[in-house]
Amino acid sequence: MPYVNIKVTDEGVTKEQKQQLIAGATQLLVDVLGKNPKTTVVVIDEVNTDNWGIGFDQVTELRKQTK
Amino acid sequence: MPYVNIKVTDEGVTKEQKQQLIAGATQLLVDVLGKNPKTTVVVIDEVNTDNWGIGFDQVTELRKQTK
Amino acid sequence: MPYVNIKVTDEGVTKEQKQQLIAGATQLLVDVLGKNPKTTVVVIDEVNTDNWGIGFDQVTELRKQTK
Amino acid sequence: MPYVNIKVTDEGVTKEQKQQLIAGATQLLVDVLGKNPKTTVVVIDEVNTDNWGIGFDQVTELRKQTK
Amino acid sequence: MPYVNIKVTDEGVTKEQKQQLIAGATQLLVDVLGKNPKTTVVVIDEVNTDNWGIGFDQVTELRKQTK
Amino acid sequence: MPYVNIKVTDEGVTKEQKQQLIAGATQLLVDVLGKNPKTTVVVIDEVNTDNWGIGFDQVTELRKQTK
Repeated sequence: MPYVNIKVTDEGVTKEQKQQLIAGATQLLVDVLGKNPKTTVVVIDEVNTDNWGIGFDQVTELRKQTK
Repeated sequence: MPYVNIKVTDEGVTKEQKQQLIAGATQLLVDVLGKNPKTTVVVIDEVNTDNWGIGFDQVTELRKQTK
Repeated sequence: MPYVNIKVTDEGVTKEQKQQLIAGATQLLVDVLGKNPKTTVVVIDEVNTDNWGIGFDQVTELRKQTK
Repeated sequence: MPYVNIKVTDEGVTKEQKQQLIAGATQLLVDVLGKNPKTTVVVIDEVNTDNWGIGFDQVTELRKQTK
Repeated sequence: MPYVNIKVTDEGVTKEQKQQLIAGATQLLVDVLGKNPKTTVVVIDEVNTDNWGIGFDQVTELRKQTK
Repeated sequence: MPYVNIKVTDEGVTKEQKQQLIAGATQLLVDVLGKNPKTTVVVIDEVNTDNWGIGFDQVTELRKQTK
């Protein structure tokens, strides 16, 4: 019955990568807590880099600095 | 003062259906807990079916299987 | 498959009221969007009145003023 | 290490305003709790006015009434 | 920079299991998306079984039925 | 109408500090976006250090290392 929410920046996550995140998070709950995968829900939020900040700065700007 | 967040897949929810979800969730808090509707907030998140998983699988794929 | 999160202040919500919130929110998703209740999840968060603010003020203080 | 999530309606929030929200929220955690800004994360969600309700009504409709 | 939130019922999750959830979710983001683990945050919420519902019912009651 | 959620570890946050977080976050939304403070909601979640992870590790363990 667990609910997992994964928030990442929207920098080209592919459908296949999302499937891997869903399968991996579900398996983690099965392995560690013995949860029923049938009712384990995973929701992925893709967040624009303008809308994500760390250390005072927008990720959009951080990406420019690291280039 | 309650806050209600409803997450559903983005499969053509109409503006009218959203209005019904907002009104219904607000009424529920009034009826069950006597909350003040004026400060009851409802936020609906529509999630892409690629980004929602249950039972290891993406909803996008589950929809194909049930067709 | 919907996920509903209800946040209210922790002011003596009974187990029966929680059951009513769960049943009511689930029914709402069935009625408005035709969702499958078997995979509709409702999670209720009870928040201490010190930790909830509206209009600059803690609910703890607002409750004193309205008494 | 704090995590701050700010939800607002998607009514033309500029990139600069988002930067101000990120910097301001981070500074608040530094000032009040002495948190390390380097690991303070701020995520802004912009929500369509059809998907946000208060007092039974969609913000989309409330905006029309106040015009 | 990802943020992962895991919600499970509060049925005796040990500190070691929490550590395994944190490590596993972080590794998943490293493996699938090449994220930096140093800024990958995992938050686990343990929810009372009275406050979690699925299929109209409180988990508290579902647990009794399956015994 | 904004909704702000602040998650911090539960390491002795006082009632007064919570009030400062609520007032500061509300003022930020007023200053940056001209939002109405009367309907600006702030919710603070205090998370056990066992339940918060960063860089693969529980904060509980990180705190021991930095002592």
